[in-house]
Amino acid sequence: MASSSITLSQAILSSSSIARNGSSQTTTTTSLSLPTFYGLKSTTTSRRRIATVPTTTTRLSVPRASATVETLEKTTDTALVEKSVNTIRFLAIDAVEKANSGHPGLPMGCAPMGHILYDEVMRYNPKNPSWFNRDRFVLSAGHGCMLQYALLHLAGYDSVQEEDLKSFRQWGSKTPGHPENFETLGVEVTTGPLGQGICNAVGLALAEKHLAARYNKPDSEIVDHYTYCILGDGCQMEGISNEASSLAGHWGLGKLIAFYDDNHISIDGDTDIAFTESVDTRFEALGWHVIWVKNGNTGYDEIRAAIKEAKAVKDKPTLIKVTTTIGYGSPNKSNSYSVHGSALGAKEVDATRKNLGWPYEPFHVPEDVKKHWSRHTPEGAALEAEWNAKFAEYEKKYSEEAAELKSIITGDLPSGWEKALPTYTPESPADATRNLSQQNLNALAKVLPGLLGGSADLASSNMTLLKMFGDFQKNTPEERNVRFGVREHSMGAICNGIAHHSPGFIPYCATFFVFTDYMRAAMRISALSDAGVIYVMTHDSIGLGEDGPTHQPIEHLASFRAMPNILMLRPADGNETAGAYKVAVLNRKRPSVLALSRQKLPQLPGTSIEGVEKGGYIISDNSSGNKPDVILMGTGSELEIAAKAADELRKEGKTVRVVSFVSWELFDEQSDEYKESVLPASVTARVSIEAGSTFGWHKIVGWKGKAIGIDRFGASAPAGIIYKEFGITAEAVIAAAKEVS
Amino acid sequence: MASSSITLSQAILSSSSIARNGSSQTTTTTSLSLPTFYGLKSTTTSRRRIATVPTTTTRLSVPRASATVETLEKTTDTALVEKSVNTIRFLAIDAVEKANSGHPGLPMGCAPMGHILYDEVMRYNPKNPSWFNRDRFVLSAGHGCMLQYALLHLAGYDSVQEEDLKSFRQWGSKTPGHPENFETLGVEVTTGPLGQGICNAVGLALAEKHLAARYNKPDSEIVDHYTYCILGDGCQMEGISNEASSLAGHWGLGKLIAFYDDNHISIDGDTDIAFTESVDTRFEALGWHVIWVKNGNTGYDEIRAAIKEAKAVKDKPTLIKVTTTIGYGSPNKSNSYSVHGSALGAKEVDATRKNLGWPYEPFHVPEDVKKHWSRHTPEGAALEAEWNAKFAEYEKKYSEEAAELKSIITGDLPSGWEKALPTYTPESPADATRNLSQQNLNALAKVLPGLLGGSADLASSNMTLLKMFGDFQKNTPEERNVRFGVREHSMGAICNGIAHHSPGFIPYCATFFVFTDYMRAAMRISALSDAGVIYVMTHDSIGLGEDGPTHQPIEHLASFRAMPNILMLRPADGNETAGAYKVAVLNRKRPSVLALSRQKLPQLPGTSIEGVEKGGYIISDNSSGNKPDVILMGTGSELEIAAKAADELRKEGKTVRVVSFVSWELFDEQSDEYKESVLPASVTARVSIEAGSTFGWHKIVGWKGKAIGIDRFGASAPAGIIYKEFGITAEAVIAAAKEVS
Repeated sequence: MASSSITLSQAILSSSSIARNGSSQTTTTTSLSLPTFYGLKSTTTSRRRIATVPTTTTRLSVPRASATVETLEKTTDTALVEKSVNTIRFLAIDAVEKANSGHPGLPMGCAPMGHILYDEVMRYNPKNPSWFNRDRFVLSAGHGCMLQYALLHLAGYDSVQEEDLKSFRQWGSKTPGHPENFETLGVEVTTGPLGQGICNAVGLALAEKHLAARYNKPDSEIVDHYTYCILGDGCQMEGISNEASSLAGHWGLGKLIAFYDDNHISIDGDTDIAFTESVDTRFEALGWHVIWVKNGNTGYDEIRAAIKEAKAVKDKPTLIKVTTTIGYGSPNKSNSYSVHGSALGAKEVDATRKNLGWPYEPFHVPEDVKKHWSRHTPEGAALEAEWNAKFAEYEKKYSEEAAELKSIITGDLPSGWEKALPTYTPESPADATRNLSQQNLNALAKVLPGLLGGSADLASSNMTLLKMFGDFQKNTPEERNVRFGVREHSMGAICNGIAHHSPGFIPYCATFFVFTDYMRAAMRISALSDAGVIYVMTHDSIGLGEDGPTHQPIEHLASFRAMPNILMLRPADGNETAGAYKVAVLNRKRPSVLALSRQKLPQLPGTSIEGVEKGGYIISDNSSGNKPDVILMGTGSELEIAAKAADELRKEGKTVRVVSFVSWELFDEQSDEYKESVLPASVTARVSIEAGSTFGWHKIVGWKGKAIGIDRFGASAPAGIIYKEFGITAEAVIAAAKEVS
Repeated sequence: MASSSITLSQAILSSSSIARNGSSQTTTTTSLSLPTFYGLKSTTTSRRRIATVPTTTTRLSVPRASATVETLEKTTDTALVEKSVNTIRFLAIDAVEKANSGHPGLPMGCAPMGHILYDEVMRYNPKNPSWFNRDRFVLSAGHGCMLQYALLHLAGYDSVQEEDLKSFRQWGSKTPGHPENFETLGVEVTTGPLGQGICNAVGLALAEKHLAARYNKPDSEIVDHYTYCILGDGCQMEGISNEASSLAGHWGLGKLIAFYDDNHISIDGDTDIAFTESVDTRFEALGWHVIWVKNGNTGYDEIRAAIKEAKAVKDKPTLIKVTTTIGYGSPNKSNSYSVHGSALGAKEVDATRKNLGWPYEPFHVPEDVKKHWSRHTPEGAALEAEWNAKFAEYEKKYSEEAAELKSIITGDLPSGWEKALPTYTPESPADATRNLSQQNLNALAKVLPGLLGGSADLASSNMTLLKMFGDFQKNTPEERNVRFGVREHSMGAICNGIAHHSPGFIPYCATFFVFTDYMRAAMRISALSDAGVIYVMTHDSIGLGEDGPTHQPIEHLASFRAMPNILMLRPADGNETAGAYKVAVLNRKRPSVLALSRQKLPQLPGTSIEGVEKGGYIISDNSSGNKPDVILMGTGSELEIAAKAADELRKEGKTVRVVSFVSWELFDEQSDEYKESVLPASVTARVSIEAGSTFGWHKIVGWKGKAIGIDRFGASAPAGIIYKEFGITAEAVIAAAKEVS
């Protein structure tokens, strides 16, 4: 690999440039010495960095002809690059210092690659951070967010003004302690929990590859951007990143370029204490192209050449291992864990200013640096204008595709889409809600161009295949069934990336409900970052039977009901499954978890899509005056049991109301009047039944009510027997109803 | 790697045997043809298996001299081996068929390696499955549990009788749908959720290496066993397995030998649809020795030679990639996903019987096979007796070490250990509970020989370093600080393995509380499998401040309170932290989660270790007759707020009781009388305060009470400001108290 890298990168450097979009670059970069790529460093080599003075000076010889030419060639005067890089470093140092909180080490080490990305490589429009065809950037090592804030600030994003930098990590600021897409325009995804970002980047790159395959035409590459990512040692250690990287290699995501900030320091010290694997070899095993930039501190040309090389490799994602010094420039703290996650302290800030020759006040951006970066505003506007013109052409020629793509870009759902939702009557055949889910997915895929997804190797159990589409694969990226393999965690995080690529994407993903435990961190980020991912979670209780307690969710419904900004839906039959999908599709800024049964369930009288939208509603009632003798409540597969118990109790003369509690969150959002109409305060005789933990139900059934559930682990046996042994039965509901009423 | 493997394996085969324990083997195995190791298969090779007839016949030429000689040399007549292997296959086929549920494919493919392990390689005593020095076996691909049940049955374990095989996956049986250590003696760990088992195996191997380093003497290797594991494609795809495998390579766990069942089929079909990485190369990158057995179906000698080679490599774990055919023997279903997770069906069972020449009734074990395996009972007893004699010798010479080791083996805690717990008075300095936790850990490490653990790269934040010990590393395995790197999920699963190695191990592990989301699947298995792991979870609320919502737990307390068999403890100060450790140490069959503060907290009057043991208790009260005007409740860092509010309310003349609710689970276990003495039913004026989701609190505060908490995500700002902005204040408690009383 090493030798081929030398050849390829040097070949690119010495040849005339390869411009995107077919526009040719007339001047070639003159560099005094070519960057050299040596073989991969042995892991036993001493890791202490020696900051070397850059020996190459590359000048911008000709002003750029158009905003769309390959920017990589236009390197700036190295002194100005250095000044810009130090501006980034000191903005980070100063912000962390002022907050007395944060992580200066990464921005100081990664400033060179950050500068080259945002100033020379990436195509974006700072005044419209959501311009569709922009290059995406993900800081997977999210703790280094001051790097990103400094870059957004320099690039002219309105979201990060000087006062925002000065209020880093303060209440209400646009510069929180980790990058949050919902706080700061220009931040694509929320990162911080390690390893998530690289998976988001895989999702973003997947989305681009998919849309390009679906919508590009021989005469119009209307979808065409790169996805860049910076990840650190911590991201590399997390299993989730290996999962997504394996998929990225499998899918051949050639426009994904990840920078591995190889600084060899993590919070506990030198990474040698826990991380001595060969990352390079691992990524080669995963099917990536791997390049090593040995001098990430000042080797600007090395970084540039690596990016060029990465772009030239079109069938594989590229990992650029950039060896940097954490806290570069700090004479006493660089290359140590002490610069990772704490402010440098006034004394060391002074020493660093001296060491890097930085005479400026805190937060100062030198005029020449400011001026240099100021071109991104007009250039970004030009890039977008050019793309808009291109899209107008495209629209003329390919109106149908343009309309579809537009709906993905804008997130406007096609009108009348919800008419595609299937409906059922009590006479419709009994079926498992996982099967009913598949009917919904297949119906919706026809009307929602942004719906795509798949399962973590359980497609035939989760029932998630879209029958009219093939598999999204390296050579069939236009297809919509994504095969994630047994990789739940990265599946969720990849879907977050897809969701954040464009508002019209509606990614869904699936596994057994119990295995949400494997992907909970990604699901929480869906909830936190407003990603409307649909989690199709089947085998949702002891009803799965023989697989036993390792596979039987118990506490999972409660655990998601407790999580903010996520909808936990447990439909009972066909109409409720359709209702759950309606809610999930409409909630584009809130993920939905659909808990679905493995076992067959009858179509119940009284269920409805509209009912589901209210979260809790009456499916049957023989009382009058809003005063039933008892209210029975159930969700999902246990709603049938509640309905049966009601039938029996009514035979005995009781007035009984049956309430489906399909989504607690939606019910909570209803008016007090509605809530009172379903659960009158005066009726304290209430019984709930759910094949899961009773935790949380007391808020609904009250002190005088009774919650029937399972507060132990499950068991391996046929489902019917477990239900009986665990007392999840109509008899138990009847007995409880008599006890409380 | 491939060429060195050839050399080494052939060298071993052709040389005289290397026996363990120094006893030399006088006869060498004669094989007609040496197994050959070719270079690693290209991933593009066609994967269809061709069942080849074995060409080697190796005979047992000399009866074994002693139970302790290397069993690997004593290969059995190949016809009998084949018969035994088919017995295993059909026990699996028949059990799955009878249950009409289960996974026959893996046992059919892995029967040869299973046979060789349990019949020729592993050292165990079937009549005492918990004999300390036994070799450990983990079926990471737990769905193939019929393999393990068949092997335990043949080997003579009382836990799996013929009737147990016949009640596979039935209510109350010893043969549940996935292996469960708490149901079936002889099963070391609970597996099924993929990837967990290989991590458990890493934990078991770590435990062995650690104990061997601590207790072995030049004249007595009192700790000396291997850890074997079978993992499948699914395990390999899961990120958790990469995490643990990276650590195993880093730690140089030479006595860990993992078999990768390379059958190229997962539930969704051919693994090519989602898994095309080079697993071999990845494991080499992770520092493993890798061997490829190309014919895992009938290549018995290849398997034997690979194990020998693996044992000879002492400084690296070994991955033996064994290429098998899933469902080997089934003429119409082998090598397809249809044999993965469903019964073959009567017709295909018949066809398989014909194909493999198996004339017997279901569940039949041929007499010669039975007789062959029957030797394991006396041999196992002899192995244990020999070890016991060795231990008696050891005890004479090294009484102190022997006593320590014994306490680890038996799980008997040293008497008076709890006296080491630190105590505090209200005058003791305010401190963060994470720091108080470190005082406890360091005090306990002196008196509990089995206490060891570490953090996922946050040791200096979680405060988990044991100051009197160094790091457990490849060359210092006797030390007790384990450096897990940023690998939360495998950290938990490795600790499960350590806990299940010997009852006296008390593993602890640490990260930020919010990152329990990364390791929840492993924590659930701690709870399910009775592993008393101590989870030290710091930065337990918005109190961590500036890192913001990605790092601030909200729903996590609720999510663990909902999980069965796990103790969620949130101590408020020094005494409560000590109490939490007392509870955690005593609960050897129930994991504990300690939620600890980043921020300083005062030592509160009224807190106590004894109080913590009751889960909820009164820390102050100015009422009489068990009738306070209002009961204020808090946990952890908010108990101080409740106490402050009480002071204010008392000044205004109210009678106020303050209750610390440090562990809901423990409180639930108290007598009704005790509960009534703390929370009298007649007092409905109740206010709770906790910096987390209010989900679940209504069971305690009741309909008339008020739960103060946070039902949204957090924010990035200094902690004090977030508390104030979110209304987690004494003022809010006072206002609520006035409202409800």
